[in-house]
Amino acid sequence: MREIRELALRRPDDMHVHLRQGPELAGYVQDLAGPFARALVMPNTIPPITTPEELAGYRASILEAAAPGGRGLGLTPLMTFKIRPGMDRERIRALKRAGAVAGKYYPQGVTTNSEDGIAASETVRETIAAMEAEGLVLCLHGEEPGAEALERERAFLPRLAELAESFPSLRIVLEHVSSAPGIEAVRALPDRVAATVTVHHLLYTLDDLLGGGLDPHLFCKPVVKSASDREAIQRVVLEGNRRFFFGSDSAPHLRKAKEGSRAAAGVYSMPVSLPLLAAFFDERDSLGLLEPFVSRFGAEFYGLPLNEGSLRLQREAWRVPEVVHGVVPLAAGRELSWRVAPAD
Amino acid sequence: MREIRELALRRPDDMHVHLRQGPELAGYVQDLAGPFARALVMPNTIPPITTPEELAGYRASILEAAAPGGRGLGLTPLMTFKIRPGMDRERIRALKRAGAVAGKYYPQGVTTNSEDGIAASETVRETIAAMEAEGLVLCLHGEEPGAEALERERAFLPRLAELAESFPSLRIVLEHVSSAPGIEAVRALPDRVAATVTVHHLLYTLDDLLGGGLDPHLFCKPVVKSASDREAIQRVVLEGNRRFFFGSDSAPHLRKAKEGSRAAAGVYSMPVSLPLLAAFFDERDSLGLLEPFVSRFGAEFYGLPLNEGSLRLQREAWRVPEVVHGVVPLAAGRELSWRVAPAD
Repeated sequence: MREIRELALRRPDDMHVHLRQGPELAGYVQDLAGPFARALVMPNTIPPITTPEELAGYRASILEAAAPGGRGLGLTPLMTFKIRPGMDRERIRALKRAGAVAGKYYPQGVTTNSEDGIAASETVRETIAAMEAEGLVLCLHGEEPGAEALERERAFLPRLAELAESFPSLRIVLEHVSSAPGIEAVRALPDRVAATVTVHHLLYTLDDLLGGGLDPHLFCKPVVKSASDREAIQRVVLEGNRRFFFGSDSAPHLRKAKEGSRAAAGVYSMPVSLPLLAAFFDERDSLGLLEPFVSRFGAEFYGLPLNEGSLRLQREAWRVPEVVHGVVPLAAGRELSWRVAPAD
Repeated sequence: MREIRELALRRPDDMHVHLRQGPELAGYVQDLAGPFARALVMPNTIPPITTPEELAGYRASILEAAAPGGRGLGLTPLMTFKIRPGMDRERIRALKRAGAVAGKYYPQGVTTNSEDGIAASETVRETIAAMEAEGLVLCLHGEEPGAEALERERAFLPRLAELAESFPSLRIVLEHVSSAPGIEAVRALPDRVAATVTVHHLLYTLDDLLGGGLDPHLFCKPVVKSASDREAIQRVVLEGNRRFFFGSDSAPHLRKAKEGSRAAAGVYSMPVSLPLLAAFFDERDSLGLLEPFVSRFGAEFYGLPLNEGSLRLQREAWRVPEVVHGVVPLAAGRELSWRVAPAD
């Protein structure tokens, strides 16, 4: 078989990213806007995105950062809001008018900036019903607060099933699926339930986090799990299952917030996600599955048109920088075999 | 019931400590030599302790650090050597004459400074037979290198059983037992097989390490495990089972080696081990079990006389320093309810 040296890809979507607010935003948006045409932007900023005004303002900041002076790299942010008890149909309509495509459900205390999350799902049923009626997608951080860290996703799965049953036309995404039971739960539910898959849950395990020395830069929520969990994630992706699509959960934390006495949760995978995915599929003679995983399945699930234009990936060795915008990226210092080709 | 305010304890032993070599040694030894009469000193220093000369020299350094200028706090180091293939009966005899009471078996690559560890237990059978003949104790870092981090202790247990069966008069200690299967395996073996229990495996779980933010100062090998594993450890200790005795595995790493991009494994519990243990037993109305756990069971297993003299513990709030000798100790910054009383 002839080795593939270069690949032209329909411009991809990242269906789960964290971009922060304030002065740090610009760098992260520019990393994103090079390769990606669209990204679903998470709302757990400080302060969080909960009103139409906040959502529109955040969207404008991202557009400005993506295209300073109007030169335009062509990033379309897909906006989300943080679900809070008491958001009524009117609020949901207004959020949709302001550009929201999804609302994010954070159980209380399970991840970064979720102290104000949802303590009991009963308190947001009216809000979720309004989202269903308005055709918005429900994005779930699927971890149950009371359970032990490695069991939180599994413990959340009955809630996922209950939500899917209670809201029969609601589209639901189990974000950053991390476990074999999570994969099985999504498989068992109707087609309107999907999951995003991150690069780190696809490629790494708990042994990479703590099997040798402890690596704070691979620490995230949900925590990367066992080899058998990773195997289940890889299997469903290599099936080309359209309900499992790419969302990086790329979450930049400055180096000092990761290398201290209490490391923040989040992996900055943006600068390496496409190269690592290309290598993953290439090593399994499945490069043809990369485009649907990053450029088609997510758009189809969200009911969005496929992106125009293409992105070139090249088989060419490069070394990942140790630090990008003050953040240590995933695979820092490692030599990778694929890279995003420079813009023409 | 009347609240106990003060407790006089036979001076305790710590049956598993790391003291390092060189200029850092003095501080760690002085922390130890206040409360503890004896300590089993681990040999995985750089360079390791493998010859009678090294062992005698290391012992002399510890004695000098414990009693600078001969003032004498009365610490007796119990010396160990690192088991290496090819150590014959003559070497084992000479190590014993130099003061060794035990030899330590490190599987290759499972913990700090174990890159030169044992790749296959067959290569050290002659050495272990010589230790058995000379009445030396075999101390095991009981983790199987090939297994996933959380399963390494369990995967090692068949090897523990095989060693106990092959060497019918050998005394064996499964060091820093960390899992319910480890507890069960030791229970199922003859009385000449015991386990040390650390403060951190007794009191903490994986959720303390990574359930909220990531805490590098609680990162150790074996990794702290689930609530049910901790429950099994607590249960056997609260039974007053004489085959489960205190060995802290206190292992100081300078702050910069813990708060970086790759944290070293080891918890510095020395400054807080007795206060945390007193609180543990006190909260369970079992203060009477503290003395046998720290001052009797270990000595009896090793065939050593019980220590003379006593140590006073007081119920008095104090705050653990953030840093001791450049190291962040266990429970840094926390207020504890028991303390070691100042010397009279």
